[in-house]
Amino acid sequence: MELYVERGFDETTVAEIAKRAGLTERTFFRHFTDKREVLFAGAAKLQDLFVEAVGEAVPDLPPVDAAIAGVVAAGALIQERRDFARQRYQIIAANAELQERELIKLAALSAALAGALRRRGVPDHAASLAAEVAIAVFRVAFERWVTDPVRLDLPQLMRESLDELRTVTADRGTG
Amino acid sequence: MELYVERGFDETTVAEIAKRAGLTERTFFRHFTDKREVLFAGAAKLQDLFVEAVGEAVPDLPPVDAAIAGVVAAGALIQERRDFARQRYQIIAANAELQERELIKLAALSAALAGALRRRGVPDHAASLAAEVAIAVFRVAFERWVTDPVRLDLPQLMRESLDELRTVTADRGTG
Repeated sequence: MELYVERGFDETTVAEIAKRAGLTERTFFRHFTDKREVLFAGAAKLQDLFVEAVGEAVPDLPPVDAAIAGVVAAGALIQERRDFARQRYQIIAANAELQERELIKLAALSAALAGALRRRGVPDHAASLAAEVAIAVFRVAFERWVTDPVRLDLPQLMRESLDELRTVTADRGTG
Repeated sequence: MELYVERGFDETTVAEIAKRAGLTERTFFRHFTDKREVLFAGAAKLQDLFVEAVGEAVPDLPPVDAAIAGVVAAGALIQERRDFARQRYQIIAANAELQERELIKLAALSAALAGALRRRGVPDHAASLAAEVAIAVFRVAFERWVTDPVRLDLPQLMRESLDELRTVTADRGTG
C-alpha cells in the first residue's frame, strides 16, 4: 500500500510489494490473485456485512433505513482502518483503471443490497431505488470523511448524509 | 448495432460494421474512434442535455426536482429512439467490458449533474446527493422501460420513480 502511494500503482511490481511485506511472490499470490486484489480483497467482507445488517434490521423499518443500517455497519468497520482507507482512496483516485473497478464493486454492492431488501419483502423497484440511495449516502459520506483532515465519525456522517438527502429529496425542499 | 445483437460485440469486426452500413473502414473511423463508440457516441449529447435542462429549471425548484428536469429531458430524447435503446441495452448487458464503460459514463453524468446544481447555488454535498438520486431514478426507470414488452412512457416512468423514491426515503415509510 505504501509503495502504491510512493511510486504510483502502475509502477509498483508484485516483487516489490512482496519484498516490503516480507513475503515471497509465491506467498503473495496465495493471498491475492493479482496486485489489484490488495485494494479490493475487503469488498466481499464489506458486502457480507451490508447484507447481514440489512437482514437483521428491525422488521418494520422503512426500506431506506434498513439499507442504511448496512451502510452504517460498513462505516464502523472502515473507520477502524482509517490509515488503510485513506491510502487506498489516494491510490484509486490517481488511477483510472482502479476507479473503474471501484465503480463495479459499488454497483455489485448496490445489487446485493437490493437483493437483501427484496428478501425483506420490499417490492422490486422500491428495493433498487432504496439500495441506490443508500450507496449514494455511502459514497458522499465516505468521500467527506476520507478527505477531511479532521478525524470525523463516519457512521455519524452517514446518518447526517441521509438526513441531508431527505432534505434535498423532500417535495417542498429548502434549496 | 444489428451485428452486435446477431453475433455478440466481441465477435463483430469494424470491417463488418462498415460493410453493413455501406461505409469504408476509413469513413467509419472518421465518425467513431473505435467500435465501442457506436454505442457511446450519444453520451456527450445526453450529458449536455442534462446540464442544460438543469440550468434552465425554475430558479426556486428544490435540488432533486431540478436534477430530475435533466433526467426527464434525457428520457424524452431516448424514447424517440426506442429500437436503438433496446438493442444497445441488450448488447451492453451481454458484455462485461461494455457494462464497465456504461458505469463510467453514468458516474460522469452524475458529476456533471452535481456541477450544474452547484451553479444553481446548491451546496456541495447536497448537490452530489441530489445528482446521485437523479441518476438512480434514471437507471431504475430506464431499466423498467427498456425491458418492458409494452411501450411505456419513459418521462412518465421517471416521474413515477421519483415519487416511489420519495416514498421509500420518507422518514415514516410505507415499507
